[in-house]
Amino acid sequence: MKIALLFGANSFEHEISIVSAIALKKVLKEELIYIFCDYNRDFYLIPTEKITSKRFSSGEYKKDKKLDIKNGGFFHKTLMGEKKLNFDIMLNVIHGSDGEDGKIASLLEFFNIPFIGPRGEASVISYNKLFTKMYAEEFGVATLEYEILQKDSKKQTNLNYPVIVKPLRLGSSIGISIVQDKSELDYALDVAYEYDNQVLIEPFIEGIKEYNLAGCKTHEYNFSIIEEPKKEEFLDFDKKYLDFSRTKRVNEAEISEELDKKIREAFIKLYEPLFCGALIRCDFFVVDNEIYINEINPVPGSLANYLFDDFNSLINKLALSLPKNIEIPKTYKYIHKIQSAKGK
Amino acid sequence: MKIALLFGANSFEHEISIVSAIALKKVLKEELIYIFCDYNRDFYLIPTEKITSKRFSSGEYKKDKKLDIKNGGFFHKTLMGEKKLNFDIMLNVIHGSDGEDGKIASLLEFFNIPFIGPRGEASVISYNKLFTKMYAEEFGVATLEYEILQKDSKKQTNLNYPVIVKPLRLGSSIGISIVQDKSELDYALDVAYEYDNQVLIEPFIEGIKEYNLAGCKTHEYNFSIIEEPKKEEFLDFDKKYLDFSRTKRVNEAEISEELDKKIREAFIKLYEPLFCGALIRCDFFVVDNEIYINEINPVPGSLANYLFDDFNSLINKLALSLPKNIEIPKTYKYIHKIQSAKGK
Repeated sequence: MKIALLFGANSFEHEISIVSAIALKKVLKEELIYIFCDYNRDFYLIPTEKITSKRFSSGEYKKDKKLDIKNGGFFHKTLMGEKKLNFDIMLNVIHGSDGEDGKIASLLEFFNIPFIGPRGEASVISYNKLFTKMYAEEFGVATLEYEILQKDSKKQTNLNYPVIVKPLRLGSSIGISIVQDKSELDYALDVAYEYDNQVLIEPFIEGIKEYNLAGCKTHEYNFSIIEEPKKEEFLDFDKKYLDFSRTKRVNEAEISEELDKKIREAFIKLYEPLFCGALIRCDFFVVDNEIYINEINPVPGSLANYLFDDFNSLINKLALSLPKNIEIPKTYKYIHKIQSAKGK
Repeated sequence: MKIALLFGANSFEHEISIVSAIALKKVLKEELIYIFCDYNRDFYLIPTEKITSKRFSSGEYKKDKKLDIKNGGFFHKTLMGEKKLNFDIMLNVIHGSDGEDGKIASLLEFFNIPFIGPRGEASVISYNKLFTKMYAEEFGVATLEYEILQKDSKKQTNLNYPVIVKPLRLGSSIGISIVQDKSELDYALDVAYEYDNQVLIEPFIEGIKEYNLAGCKTHEYNFSIIEEPKKEEFLDFDKKYLDFSRTKRVNEAEISEELDKKIREAFIKLYEPLFCGALIRCDFFVVDNEIYINEINPVPGSLANYLFDDFNSLINKLALSLPKNIEIPKTYKYIHKIQSAKGK
């Protein structure tokens, strides 16, 4: 199978995406081609053998073949016209905005390019932390209590301190602060507002248990091991950034069979049918044996390969289990009807 | 102002969009250019003076200039290369899938094309009737009770008959049936499943009062009159279809000041900030003086021009009040950091 990795894009996590995409070179056994979307949203075909992070930070990639996305795929100019890039499936490895907010999903769906990754709806629901909460509650998975503040609203919260302040729509711990008391709130809000006009405030629970489970549905559910992520006070950006590039270094959770089962059940409640076609990682909290969903990552760093025994086979299976769209008949029967009614 | 109308696309409401776009020719006083997206999602520039519904149903549009969407706009090929189409703002007049599900919004946002219409998040929330309910409840606007069925689930409901069966993600009354008793449910579900793998079932309330309010926020809220739509048993596709092409023929609701105020308040709760940049029409039910949101139309037929006194000025104002994106710094500081840590 020939897989096209799509990475980069106009995102605060642009660099993470580059590291994530490069990491997959060691993990996937298939033929890979690399399609880079730069900060300006121009697409380039990066030679697989020459891929290094420096190629992007130096701007050297601009000498690579430029691509246009169009109906049916990615095209590059030739002397005679243009040529379509040949691959079987695209893997969305763009983290944060563009990749996880529904833009890339929409582009690929609109132009009929088969891909692994969240569809438009799944992206919007998981990218916006408020929508994730609404969705999870609807399907019977609990979430922590919260408040939403707007950039122009009062800088105050009714929650008990300490609280955690997060931009409403961002991953990778960017712009997140733990706030011990009222005096620290203003600054934390200012930080978060640099990334979003809306912020989410939740209680910060010291020493909360966190468990991550990745997976996807093909003809059956395919689950990763459950990881208990190592953490400092909480995962900061640098830490996560390095995590994303790791290919094997996991802290498997030592939990009861019962908790294991509960976590899988919560995953299933959240996954289907919204996330079909994507390999997602759900990050759960456990408080007093109750499970809370913290975040749904529809494009986890390096797609959480390090949590699976045979990631390569999984991607192959998932590529064959993509959701199908309902066919829309291409007719003009109503216009014909009006025309004949008017005698035209 | 030069306005580009975008219409058509791969949607069950493709034809409605054509009628809707043509109707705006009489309504908007600005310079208009027409960009048609055909069922295959190829774009064409249709000469404004030659636009008729027949041009599309006959396939004649294929002789018009073909366009590519790219970073910054729409381009057509010239002898010397390509030329960017010149307009100030695009108006999304695509109803149903593509236009209201977030694909077109994503395309226009991704390629930095300024447009009036719902953004990606707003599209996904309003297009999916379940998400609309979750969202409305979250922001304090009631909705009718409901059930969701999947294509492979049992064909039964716990709601009391009569019920109304709707595809989860479609507008314009397509695929909707009123079901009087159990014996009719199977068929109604089969009809709805032709349009979506998920259906929504709600109680059908005979003679329910329905009120529509359109509007948008610029520096202030701009509201239309409140319409009480004329209806048969319920608005069927043909009826709505003709409605969409009308330019003046409205049934202004005769309601108390109190109800009028409640409807506006509900509209505001739903509108901001999600729908900024769009002119939407909210369709409310009123039962026992309580307000329920039935549907949020983020691209209403002919943008509900017939409900406004001065639609042309409103579009001009809205064009100057589009939501702004947060600027993402184009840096490579983390990669530089890793490179220097590695001594590369």
